[in-house]
Amino acid sequence: MDFLDEPFPDVGTYEDFHTIDWLREKSRDTDRHRKITSKSKESFWELFKSLLDAWSGWVVMLLIGLLSGTLAGVIDLAVDWMTDLKEGVCLSAFWYSHEQCCWTSNETTFDDRDKCPQWQKWAELMTGHAEGAGAYVLNYFLYILWALLFSFLAVSLVRVFAPYACGSGIPEIKTILSGFIIRGYLGKWTLLIKTVTLVLAVSSGLSLGKEGPLVHVACCCGNLFCSLFSKYSKNEGKRREVLSAAAAAGVSVAFGAPIGGVLFSLEEVSYYFPLKTLWRSFFAALVAAFTLRSINPFGNSRLVLFYVEYHTPWYMAELVPFILLGVFGGLWGTLFIRANIAWCRRRKTTQLGKYPVLEVIAVTGITAVLAYPNPYTRRSTSELISELFNDCGALESSQLCDYINNPNMSRPVDDIPDRPAGPGVYNALWQLALALVFKIVITIFTFGMKIPSGLFIPSMAVGAIAGRIVGIAVEQMAYHHHDWIIFKNWCRPGADCVTPGLYAMVGAAACLGGVTRMTVSLVVIMFELTGGLEYIVPLMAAAVTSKWVADAFGKEGIYESHIQLNGYPYLDIRDEFTHRTLATDVMRPRRTTPLWRSSPRTAPRWRTGLSASFSAGTSPSPSVKNARQKQDGVVSSSVVYFTEDAPQLPATNPQPLKLRRILNLSPFTVTDHTPMETVVDIFRKLGLRQCLVTRSGRLLGIITKKDVLRHMAQMMNQDPESIMFN
Amino acid sequence: MDFLDEPFPDVGTYEDFHTIDWLREKSRDTDRHRKITSKSKESFWELFKSLLDAWSGWVVMLLIGLLSGTLAGVIDLAVDWMTDLKEGVCLSAFWYSHEQCCWTSNETTFDDRDKCPQWQKWAELMTGHAEGAGAYVLNYFLYILWALLFSFLAVSLVRVFAPYACGSGIPEIKTILSGFIIRGYLGKWTLLIKTVTLVLAVSSGLSLGKEGPLVHVACCCGNLFCSLFSKYSKNEGKRREVLSAAAAAGVSVAFGAPIGGVLFSLEEVSYYFPLKTLWRSFFAALVAAFTLRSINPFGNSRLVLFYVEYHTPWYMAELVPFILLGVFGGLWGTLFIRANIAWCRRRKTTQLGKYPVLEVIAVTGITAVLAYPNPYTRRSTSELISELFNDCGALESSQLCDYINNPNMSRPVDDIPDRPAGPGVYNALWQLALALVFKIVITIFTFGMKIPSGLFIPSMAVGAIAGRIVGIAVEQMAYHHHDWIIFKNWCRPGADCVTPGLYAMVGAAACLGGVTRMTVSLVVIMFELTGGLEYIVPLMAAAVTSKWVADAFGKEGIYESHIQLNGYPYLDIRDEFTHRTLATDVMRPRRTTPLWRSSPRTAPRWRTGLSASFSAGTSPSPSVKNARQKQDGVVSSSVVYFTEDAPQLPATNPQPLKLRRILNLSPFTVTDHTPMETVVDIFRKLGLRQCLVTRSGRLLGIITKKDVLRHMAQMMNQDPESIMFN
Repeated sequence: MDFLDEPFPDVGTYEDFHTIDWLREKSRDTDRHRKITSKSKESFWELFKSLLDAWSGWVVMLLIGLLSGTLAGVIDLAVDWMTDLKEGVCLSAFWYSHEQCCWTSNETTFDDRDKCPQWQKWAELMTGHAEGAGAYVLNYFLYILWALLFSFLAVSLVRVFAPYACGSGIPEIKTILSGFIIRGYLGKWTLLIKTVTLVLAVSSGLSLGKEGPLVHVACCCGNLFCSLFSKYSKNEGKRREVLSAAAAAGVSVAFGAPIGGVLFSLEEVSYYFPLKTLWRSFFAALVAAFTLRSINPFGNSRLVLFYVEYHTPWYMAELVPFILLGVFGGLWGTLFIRANIAWCRRRKTTQLGKYPVLEVIAVTGITAVLAYPNPYTRRSTSELISELFNDCGALESSQLCDYINNPNMSRPVDDIPDRPAGPGVYNALWQLALALVFKIVITIFTFGMKIPSGLFIPSMAVGAIAGRIVGIAVEQMAYHHHDWIIFKNWCRPGADCVTPGLYAMVGAAACLGGVTRMTVSLVVIMFELTGGLEYIVPLMAAAVTSKWVADAFGKEGIYESHIQLNGYPYLDIRDEFTHRTLATDVMRPRRTTPLWRSSPRTAPRWRTGLSASFSAGTSPSPSVKNARQKQDGVVSSSVVYFTEDAPQLPATNPQPLKLRRILNLSPFTVTDHTPMETVVDIFRKLGLRQCLVTRSGRLLGIITKKDVLRHMAQMMNQDPESIMFN
Repeated sequence: MDFLDEPFPDVGTYEDFHTIDWLREKSRDTDRHRKITSKSKESFWELFKSLLDAWSGWVVMLLIGLLSGTLAGVIDLAVDWMTDLKEGVCLSAFWYSHEQCCWTSNETTFDDRDKCPQWQKWAELMTGHAEGAGAYVLNYFLYILWALLFSFLAVSLVRVFAPYACGSGIPEIKTILSGFIIRGYLGKWTLLIKTVTLVLAVSSGLSLGKEGPLVHVACCCGNLFCSLFSKYSKNEGKRREVLSAAAAAGVSVAFGAPIGGVLFSLEEVSYYFPLKTLWRSFFAALVAAFTLRSINPFGNSRLVLFYVEYHTPWYMAELVPFILLGVFGGLWGTLFIRANIAWCRRRKTTQLGKYPVLEVIAVTGITAVLAYPNPYTRRSTSELISELFNDCGALESSQLCDYINNPNMSRPVDDIPDRPAGPGVYNALWQLALALVFKIVITIFTFGMKIPSGLFIPSMAVGAIAGRIVGIAVEQMAYHHHDWIIFKNWCRPGADCVTPGLYAMVGAAACLGGVTRMTVSLVVIMFELTGGLEYIVPLMAAAVTSKWVADAFGKEGIYESHIQLNGYPYLDIRDEFTHRTLATDVMRPRRTTPLWRSSPRTAPRWRTGLSASFSAGTSPSPSVKNARQKQDGVVSSSVVYFTEDAPQLPATNPQPLKLRRILNLSPFTVTDHTPMETVVDIFRKLGLRQCLVTRSGRLLGIITKKDVLRHMAQMMNQDPESIMFN
C-alpha cells in the first residue's frame, strides 16, 4: 500500500459528468473507518479524532438544519415584504410588509387589520388619491413595473453568476443522488444566487413556488458542510447520504413538515437510503423546522404553512366528489406534464431558447397584466391557498364567506350550519373559475424558465381552486336539496354538513399527486401542512385516484420527464425492465456475427478487460497519471507491470511503472447469458459503473452504466444518443 | 422450453427452513408477467385475466385490511370483556364489559360512570356484601383464579394446536421477510389459535401487550389471501411483498397509527421494501384502521388508542428532564434485553424449557397475586397508560389529579395553573413506584413464554410510570420554587407550566425506543397514538438519547437478539461488516494449503460448479427429480446431458436425461480476491442464495448464504454452528 495510502488529488477521483461507483465508495469508506478504529487505540488524541469522526455525521446534520432553516426564514420574510412592495409601502418603516405594518399600528381594530393609515398604496402616496380610476391604473402600472424589475433581476443574476440556479433543481438532485457528478451544481455560488433569485422570482408574482428550489438550497447547504469533514468531502457515496438528508430538511422548511420531508426524500428524491440516513434525515428535518419556527416568519408561531381547523367530520357519501377531484388531479397532471415537456422541448430546439431573458420578461408581463384585475390571482399564491383551505368562521370577512345568515338563529362562533350562498360567493366563484384557467395555462409556460421555480404551490393552487368550487357546489346542493337521496342520510336541515375548505385541501393533494406522483409523502405532507390528522382517508382516496388516472397515461412524473428531456443518466428504480435481452446483446464490443456465440475465443479479450478493471477512476487515465506522478523515474518509455513484483531490469532501462496497486483484483462479472433484467437490477442495487461479461471464464466484453441506459432507451423506442454521459 | 413451462409442484420449489433466491423469484415473476402481457392481446378473456392480475395486488391489500381490522376489533372487544370478567359481571347482559354495562344503564351520572347497580363484583354477587375484608379476599381469590384459568387455556391451546402461535412473532416475521421459509408459521391454524390465545393471554393480566402478536395475526391474514392468487402463492418473493404490507396493517390496527405502521414495516420488519410496496402498505394500513374505527371498540369513535389534549406548550428547559428520561429508557432497554435473553437462554438449555405450562401458570399466579393489591397494576395496562398520559382536567376524579385547589381562584375548565399536590398524589406516587419495580421485573420473565406476548405495551407502561413520576416531581419543584433560576424564565406563579402527562408520553417513547431501537417509526407512532403533532421535539429528543445510550451497550434490539438466540439465518441490513477477509477465505472447498493461491488449477472445478448452478431448487435434487419425472424413458442408467442437443445414441441405450433446461446459465460469480464486505453487500442487496468464486475464469469454490452467516458469526466470536439452516 505504498502510494495509495494518500488520498488522490480531487481532480483524480471523478470528473465532471461522470458517474460514481457506489461499491467502491463504500469499500473506501470501510477502509477509512478501519484505519481510524485501529489508530484510535494508539493515543488519546487519535481516540478523540475517532470520536469526532463518529459524531461528524450528526454535526453536519445539525449545521444543515440550522442553515437551511435560517435561509428559509429569511426567504419567507423577504418574499413577504417584496410581494407587498409591488402594491404599496409602509410609511412608518419601509422594510415592513403590509401585515407587519398594520400590526405595529395600534389604531386599527382586528376586523380591518388590512387597512391602516401607515400602509399606503403607491397611487395614494404619489398623488394623494386612494380611490378612482386614475389611482387604479397607476397602481396597476406600478405593479407590472415592479414585477418586471424583479424578474429581470432574477433572470440576469442567474445568467451571469450561476446558470445552475435556475429551475426547481429536483430533477438534477435526483440525478446527482443516483451517483452522477455535476460540479458546481451544489456550489456556494449556486447557493447564494439561488437564494436571492428565488426571492425575486416569487415576489415578481409569477406562477411558481419556492418549495423545489428550497430543496436545492438545502442540498447546497449540505454540500457546503460536507467540505468541513474529509469523511464526506472525499467520498462521493457518503456525500450523497448527507445530501439525501439535506433534501429532507429542504421540504421540512418549505412546508413545516419534517416527517413529510423525510418521506419525500425517501420516496421521491433519494436513490440509496440506508436506515442510518433515515434517522439522520429526520434529525436534520427537525432542526430545520425548529429553526424556522424560532424565526417565525408567518407570525403565528406555528410550524405549519396552512393551519386549518374544521369543525365537522366528513361523510362517506363525500368520497364521490373527493374521487372526482382525484380524477381531475390525474388529468391535470397528465396534461401539465405533456404540455410542459412539449414547450420545454421547443425551447431547447428552436430559437426560443436563445432569449431566456426576453422570455422571462414576456411571461412576467403577461402574468402581471392578467393577474392584477382578479383579486385571487393578484395576491401571493400561498395566501390564496390559505384562504381556499379555510373554513368560513363567524368572523371571516372574505368574499368567499359571504353567506346569507338566518337572522332567527343565534350564531355560535364555531358551528355554523350550511347556509345559502350570497352574491359575494357567486362573484367569487366566477373569479375563481377565471383564476383556475389562468393558472393552468400560465404555469405550463412558467415552469422550466431560467429562473428558480417550484411546482408545488402552483399545482396546489390549481387543485385548491377546483376543490373549493366543487365544495361550494356540493354545499349549495346539499342545502337546497336536503331531500335528495344522496344527502338524506347525513345532512339534515340546519346542520353543518359540507366544509368547502376540505374539498380545496383534497383537490390540492390530487393535483400535486398527479404532477409529482408522490404517494405516502404527499399525504403526510398534506396533513402536516394543515394539521388535520382526521382527514387521511379523503386525502388518500384523492391521491390514489389521481395516481391511477395519471399513471394510465404515462408512468413518469414531472421530475422523471425533465430528467429524460435533459438526458441525464438516471437509472430509475421504479421502471421495470421487462425485455428478454441478454447481457451479450448489450456488451461492447458487440458481437457482430452469430459465429462468436459458439467460439468466444475470437473476442478481443484482455485489452478491454484491463482498461475496464482499473479501480481508481472513471477512466484509467487519471489513475495512471497519478500513479506515474507518485513513482520516481518513470518516463514515456517505461515498461508497465501489473504483477506483484516487477522483475529486475538492467540498470540502463528506465524505472518501470508498477500498476498493481490500482488494478481492481475483483471486477464484477456476469456471464453472457445473464438476462438484462438481472443486469439492470445489479446495476441499480449495487450502483455499479461497469461490469465484465464472461463466458466459461473467458472475457467477452464489458457493460457500462451508459450501455445499460442506452439499451433501456432503445428498448423504449427513444433516441439512445440523447443520454448525457461521459 | 418444454417441461419448464408448467410450474413446478409446490414441494419442488423451496423446502422448509430453506432460504429463497430473490433474484430468481424476481425473474420468474417477470417471465410470468411477460407471458400474461403477450397473451392479453390474444382474446378478450385473456385481457380480462391480465387486468385481474394487475389489480390482484390491490385486492389482496383490501382483503388484508378488512380482515385484520375486523380481527383487531374483535380482539379488543373480547379483551375488554374478559379483563372485566376477572372482577365481576354485568347483570343486565353478561357479555357486556364494565364500561358498556354502565353506559347502557341510564341511572348513572357522568361522574361515577364506573359505579352502576348492574355491574356487580363477584363477592357482591355471591355473598351480597360489596364491602369488607371478606369480600376483598373473595374478589382477590377469584381474580387469581380467572387469571390462572385464562393463561392455562392459552398455553394449552398453543401447545396442542399451534406451537408457532407463541411469542410476539416479530423476530420470526423479520426472518421470513428476509427470505427464510418456515412452513406453517403463517398458516390458518396459527391465525386462529393466535387470535384466541392472544385474547386469553392479555385478559389473564400478564405483563404483555397485543401489538406484536397483532402483527403476526395480520401477516397470517396476508398469507391466507396470498393463496387466492397464484401470482403471490407461487412466488415467494412476491408473497413477501404482501407480508410486508400486512405487517404495516398489523401495527396500524394495534395503535390506530397507519403511517406509523408503514414506517414500522419499513424500518423494523421488512427486508426488501420497494416503493410499490410502500404505497400498497399504506393502503392496507389505512383500510385496516378504517375497519377498526367502524367497529369502534374503544367507544370514542377515534382511531387513536390514547388520545390526549394538552393545553400548554413545552419549554426549552424541559428538554433536560426529557433527555434524562431518554437515558432511563436506554438503560432500561439494555437491562431488559440482557436479562430477558439470559432468562430465555436458560429456558432453552435447562429443565425449565420442558415445563412451559407450569411456567406460564407460575408467572400468572405471581403476577395476579402481586398485581391485585395495587390499583395501578390491577387494571389493564393500556388503561394505566391512558391515565398516565392524561392531563389533569377540572373534571378528573383520578387519584393522580388530587391537587389542592386555590379556593380564591375561579376554575376555568381547561387552563388550570400548577397546584400543590394533595395526599392522593403522594399516595399515587408510592403506588406508581411499586408498580414500576413490579413491571420491570415481571416483564423480563413474561416475554418469551409459550403464549402470545407483545412487548410494546409493557415497555410503554414502564416508561409512562417513570415519566409521570418525573413529571410530577418537576411540577412540584416548579410550584414550590418559582424563584429558582431554572424556572424563573418560563414559570410564573399561577401559570400552568408543567404537564406531567407529557412526561409520561416522552418516557413511554424512550423505553419503547430503548427496547426496540425504532426511531422514526417510534416517533410517528407516538404522535399518531396521542394526536399530538406539537410534541415531536420532546419525543424526538428522548428517542435519540435512548437509542444512543442503548446502542452504547450493544447494537441489537430485542428482536435481533431473539433472532440470534434462536439461530435464525438473518442477514441484518444494519450490521456493518468491517473485517478484511476475502471471498477466498470463506468459500468451500476451503483452500487447505497456501499453495492453491498460486496454482488455482488444482481446485476441484466443475463438479462443485455444476451442482451449484442448478437454478430451480435449493439443492439440485428436487429439480432433477422433477426433470426426470417429466422425461419419458429415463432410468437409473440414463446418460445425463447438459448440452443443448443430446447426441444420437444407439437405440439400445435408455433415453438420456436432458438437464439443459434446469441449468442456470448465468450463475453469479465473484473473484477470489473480492473483499468479504463486498460479498456480504451483494448477498444482502441482491438476496442471493449462493455465489461462485472464480479466479482468472476458473472455478475455485462456492459461497452460500449459510457460509456468509457462519463467517459473520465467527468474526463476531459467536458459535457459527448455532445458525439454523438447511
